[in-house]
Amino acid sequence: MARAHWGCCPWLVLLCACAWGHPKPADLGGQDVRNCSTNPPYLPVTVVNTTVSLTALRQQMQTQNLSAYIIPDTDAHMNEYIGQHDERRAWITGFTGSAGTAVVTMKKAAVWTDSRYWTQAERQMDCNWELHKEVGTTPIVTWLLTEIPAGGCVGFDPFLLSIDTWESYNLALQGSNRQLVSITTNLVDLVWGSERPPVPNQPIYALQEAFTGSTWQEKVSGVRSQMQKHQKAPTAVLLSALEETAWLFNLRASDIPYNPFFYSYTLLTDSSIRLFANKSRFSSEILSYLNSSCTGPMCVQIEDYSQVRDSIQAYALGDVRIWIGTSYTMYGIYEVIPKEKLVTDTYSPVMMTKAVKNSKEQALLKASHVRDAVAVIRYLVWLEKNVPKGTVDEFSGAELVDKFRGEEQFSSGPSFETISASGLNAALAHYSPTKELNRKLSSDEMYLLDSGGQYWDGTTDITRTIHWGTPSAFQKEAYTRVLIGNIDLSRLIFPAATSGRMVEAFARRALWDAGLNYGHGTGHGIGNFLCVHEWPVGFQSNNIAMAKGMFTSIEPGYYKDGEFGIRLEDVALVVEAKTKYPGSYLTFEVVSFVPYDRNLIDVSLLSPEHLQYLNRYYQTIREKVGPELQRRQLLEEFKWLQQHTEPLAARAPDTASWASMLVVSTLAILIWSV
Amino acid sequence: MARAHWGCCPWLVLLCACAWGHPKPADLGGQDVRNCSTNPPYLPVTVVNTTVSLTALRQQMQTQNLSAYIIPDTDAHMNEYIGQHDERRAWITGFTGSAGTAVVTMKKAAVWTDSRYWTQAERQMDCNWELHKEVGTTPIVTWLLTEIPAGGCVGFDPFLLSIDTWESYNLALQGSNRQLVSITTNLVDLVWGSERPPVPNQPIYALQEAFTGSTWQEKVSGVRSQMQKHQKAPTAVLLSALEETAWLFNLRASDIPYNPFFYSYTLLTDSSIRLFANKSRFSSEILSYLNSSCTGPMCVQIEDYSQVRDSIQAYALGDVRIWIGTSYTMYGIYEVIPKEKLVTDTYSPVMMTKAVKNSKEQALLKASHVRDAVAVIRYLVWLEKNVPKGTVDEFSGAELVDKFRGEEQFSSGPSFETISASGLNAALAHYSPTKELNRKLSSDEMYLLDSGGQYWDGTTDITRTIHWGTPSAFQKEAYTRVLIGNIDLSRLIFPAATSGRMVEAFARRALWDAGLNYGHGTGHGIGNFLCVHEWPVGFQSNNIAMAKGMFTSIEPGYYKDGEFGIRLEDVALVVEAKTKYPGSYLTFEVVSFVPYDRNLIDVSLLSPEHLQYLNRYYQTIREKVGPELQRRQLLEEFKWLQQHTEPLAARAPDTASWASMLVVSTLAILIWSV
Repeated sequence: MARAHWGCCPWLVLLCACAWGHPKPADLGGQDVRNCSTNPPYLPVTVVNTTVSLTALRQQMQTQNLSAYIIPDTDAHMNEYIGQHDERRAWITGFTGSAGTAVVTMKKAAVWTDSRYWTQAERQMDCNWELHKEVGTTPIVTWLLTEIPAGGCVGFDPFLLSIDTWESYNLALQGSNRQLVSITTNLVDLVWGSERPPVPNQPIYALQEAFTGSTWQEKVSGVRSQMQKHQKAPTAVLLSALEETAWLFNLRASDIPYNPFFYSYTLLTDSSIRLFANKSRFSSEILSYLNSSCTGPMCVQIEDYSQVRDSIQAYALGDVRIWIGTSYTMYGIYEVIPKEKLVTDTYSPVMMTKAVKNSKEQALLKASHVRDAVAVIRYLVWLEKNVPKGTVDEFSGAELVDKFRGEEQFSSGPSFETISASGLNAALAHYSPTKELNRKLSSDEMYLLDSGGQYWDGTTDITRTIHWGTPSAFQKEAYTRVLIGNIDLSRLIFPAATSGRMVEAFARRALWDAGLNYGHGTGHGIGNFLCVHEWPVGFQSNNIAMAKGMFTSIEPGYYKDGEFGIRLEDVALVVEAKTKYPGSYLTFEVVSFVPYDRNLIDVSLLSPEHLQYLNRYYQTIREKVGPELQRRQLLEEFKWLQQHTEPLAARAPDTASWASMLVVSTLAILIWSV
Repeated sequence: MARAHWGCCPWLVLLCACAWGHPKPADLGGQDVRNCSTNPPYLPVTVVNTTVSLTALRQQMQTQNLSAYIIPDTDAHMNEYIGQHDERRAWITGFTGSAGTAVVTMKKAAVWTDSRYWTQAERQMDCNWELHKEVGTTPIVTWLLTEIPAGGCVGFDPFLLSIDTWESYNLALQGSNRQLVSITTNLVDLVWGSERPPVPNQPIYALQEAFTGSTWQEKVSGVRSQMQKHQKAPTAVLLSALEETAWLFNLRASDIPYNPFFYSYTLLTDSSIRLFANKSRFSSEILSYLNSSCTGPMCVQIEDYSQVRDSIQAYALGDVRIWIGTSYTMYGIYEVIPKEKLVTDTYSPVMMTKAVKNSKEQALLKASHVRDAVAVIRYLVWLEKNVPKGTVDEFSGAELVDKFRGEEQFSSGPSFETISASGLNAALAHYSPTKELNRKLSSDEMYLLDSGGQYWDGTTDITRTIHWGTPSAFQKEAYTRVLIGNIDLSRLIFPAATSGRMVEAFARRALWDAGLNYGHGTGHGIGNFLCVHEWPVGFQSNNIAMAKGMFTSIEPGYYKDGEFGIRLEDVALVVEAKTKYPGSYLTFEVVSFVPYDRNLIDVSLLSPEHLQYLNRYYQTIREKVGPELQRRQLLEEFKWLQQHTEPLAARAPDTASWASMLVVSTLAILIWSV
């Protein structure tokens, strides 16, 4: 899916928001935004009064002798989705958008966010808050320098700034006679008090062995072996991302929306395993599964989540070297480890290992995609019958596809909020329908469905775009060019260890040819019952090189503002390619098994190679999904699948290319017959 | 050309040496390398005895209280080619390869270089020197830490370390209790003494107005206007790269091999222009051309080259902000400017402006390519007659093509050392023939010619690969796949401001498809009588985004170790593309006008679109070069050109794709006739 763009962490959201090229926010009527220039100001009912909480926050700031306090939009683990108790920026400002930083001084308060959220912010914030239509630390620091006096202190919660973000603030403030001050007690939390939602506390459970690629003991040994081989000989690996700890121990919970994680850190040393989490959440079975009653190198000692900083600091007193992935480590951990005891990489060895699925993990992920295809096909068959009746809307549609997924074996809910968008809504980067606000599906409009599921064996993510009536020639052309892009990238053969960014333009070439393009990335990694946007695999500049065993989405699109949106997204496994001459080459094997919309394909734009690829893919869909539909007596769906995967044949191209094909064929015949 | 890879500066050479994937060095017989493990050591006659100069250098180091001294391979301006008086590393070590860093301690001496030079180093260095087969600062610092005592000082000439290189040494040494010490007097120069070749001193001349895109006054005003618009309001721009000063003032000389530059710096402030160079080299006409007798904002004050550091330091005392391009500024300048008075970008505004040619510069560069094509075609025609006689060798061939270029109007010599490589030599990344060591050209082998000229109106660079006999099926296939890569990238339509790295894989796809590839970059910018590798335009990761008016080479290749090498290189102008739907799109217009070798093209591999492109290109060659050949009565060459640009027609493809084409055509006919 292309919504909260590519990655399990908010900084990626920011990055991708820019890539969308500032699409217009959903226009839900301009009268419902605040107007702070009238006297008294006009405030719509959607606005939250923040005067009391701001006053209380400023009292806390005064106690700490701060001139300003930064309130980021992230949590302590760079999660893509954050829990309610971590929504400090939303609570203090009223503005609930997923991206945006707030800064409070003794006199002013301001929010910086990107274009997706400008209208929403004007609708939710009262006049205590300035809205700055910019992102990044530079504009914030520029503003701070004019707002706070020389010698002033800027406070922040070190668990809410990544190392990079902290460095960027620090660099910008250097030589300015203003100082960054790390305060481990979050000041917003102090003000929020008992109103703050509780931290999740459901039991943490272990995956059944059938759903894991390796035991946690095997994974621990693997990481230790990487530590030993590392030239800087780290004595420990520190894991800060929740997916790292979840993956390492094959444990799951549901602390985070759409992500089956639990709040935790892991310090894996050469002689011990220390898991920081809420101990009361582990049953005796899980404690025994983790060998938590012993203290040897293969025993998991559970320590309290809140102890992580002190424990790391204490460990760092020894003759140790702690290996971290800087992308997911917060300044609050980083600042307690002496620099000479740090071994840094962009991503931790767990992040790098997890990116390459072993054969069992591959089989699991593929199996989840077959069942996921059944759910999506059930929905498409249902839509085909019901859309013409005019009884389906985007929201009820989204609910239905979520329900169909929920009925699949091993289902554990959607992997992100379903994007169900009809007509012009599909052109919005950031659209999901609500019960109150949605659009009816119609045979006169295109419909875009971007959705996925969490299953015990795998996470899925697929986008299909459909038209049940008569699409315009332009819609068919745009759709077909998007499809060509999907095919051209999917069938590309490229050298092992090529970076995604080197090849993602193959998904765009057919669009570029006609002067069309899309403003988002081309794909992202995906996990085994982990993140739907699993970093660091993908096609962006900060993704790592492609390797056999990785899974990535491939999802070109095209968006016509105010009219329609197209995206065709599949998940693909990186596999070895057989080339004519020997070499280490890779290609993709698509594991999403839902046919494209024949009604929208202009066959005359496809080359013989595209047709051949497409028909082979359709044959694979039949082989994978057909038996599953039959086994489950979904005969109507089976019939639909057969119809929609009939081999496509070349049709009359437009006159010009037809003429050129005739010329070439004739010439070929003439020369051949000589 | 792809030899001393892509860029006017040695750090790029290093970068690209890695990209070649460690090709084997030219094997000229293993017995001629040193053997330091025998007693006495075996030293071939090619070795230089460095004992005396090393002893003298160590005395200088002792005087400065240094434990080690770094001797880089660059000069003070990051020139791609360096003058003899700057070849300090070659003089002190004996090793003359263009890339390699030397470090001397009180007891040891060592050189670090890449695989291209390992054999050469063993042939030229005596046993005073260790050879380290690595590159980059990390292995050097690792070695230093074991070789010099704690508290030791590591000396370096601050004009021979770029800011980046200095930072990399500094970072690696941090916390190690060893200190970097900047010493402005070069210690090797002190030892070299009167033997050191003199600094070039030929007159500096101005380009005639006919050969310049703008006057220097217009260029100065343009840069000042950029200073005013810059949000950090710099008061001055400092130019360190020789090409920047040469471009700004439309001045040239011949201090550097192949590059028409002179040793200089420019400090362009909001109210003055200060040109640092050897004043005696300016004639009274040039002084008058530069308005050097006044002191106003449009008067060029000439100051002595050696004064630049002191002058910048003095200027930096004021309320100023100095704008530099960090890529071309050495630490010796950087360290005298207080950090808060620096405005840094990767490239200076002159570098960025120069990258986009105005319409006059475009016309000039194109005109030089037409004459250059005449010289290359004359050579190809001559080869076609003489190679079968067995009288041509790589070196005499190179001399002849250089001579033909020299006979063209406005010629100012070759733009780099001609790569004239027959058979297996063409597979070597770093090959140029010598009078003593070369290979005969033969109808049984492929021949690769990569060469270019400096003309007053433009710099050229073109590579063609030829076979005069019967190439193997594999040679034809590889050649055709390289050609397809060249065509696919040349005809690509892409959005304005796309980075070259995003699209360079289009030049590789046809090779990848068959399991083939090449280990070098795909292209580089080129100047108007400036660098043949003009940074920052090109297809590498540190090149800037493509814009209308840039020129770049496009040069895929394929190299079969020990057998043959193929490269097809053209220079192309970035132009606006007309797309079906409106948008800001770009494509390439090829301005190299020499046909490819028909003997090596397997037409059955080309699509109708490739054939159409190729035939249109051949038509353009006829239109551009034909009249020029006729005008100059080069009738044999004209006839050759007509033959070699006959339109190519589709030939019988292999059975499989032929069958599929028949099927598609038949299907199309059937469906069309329905």
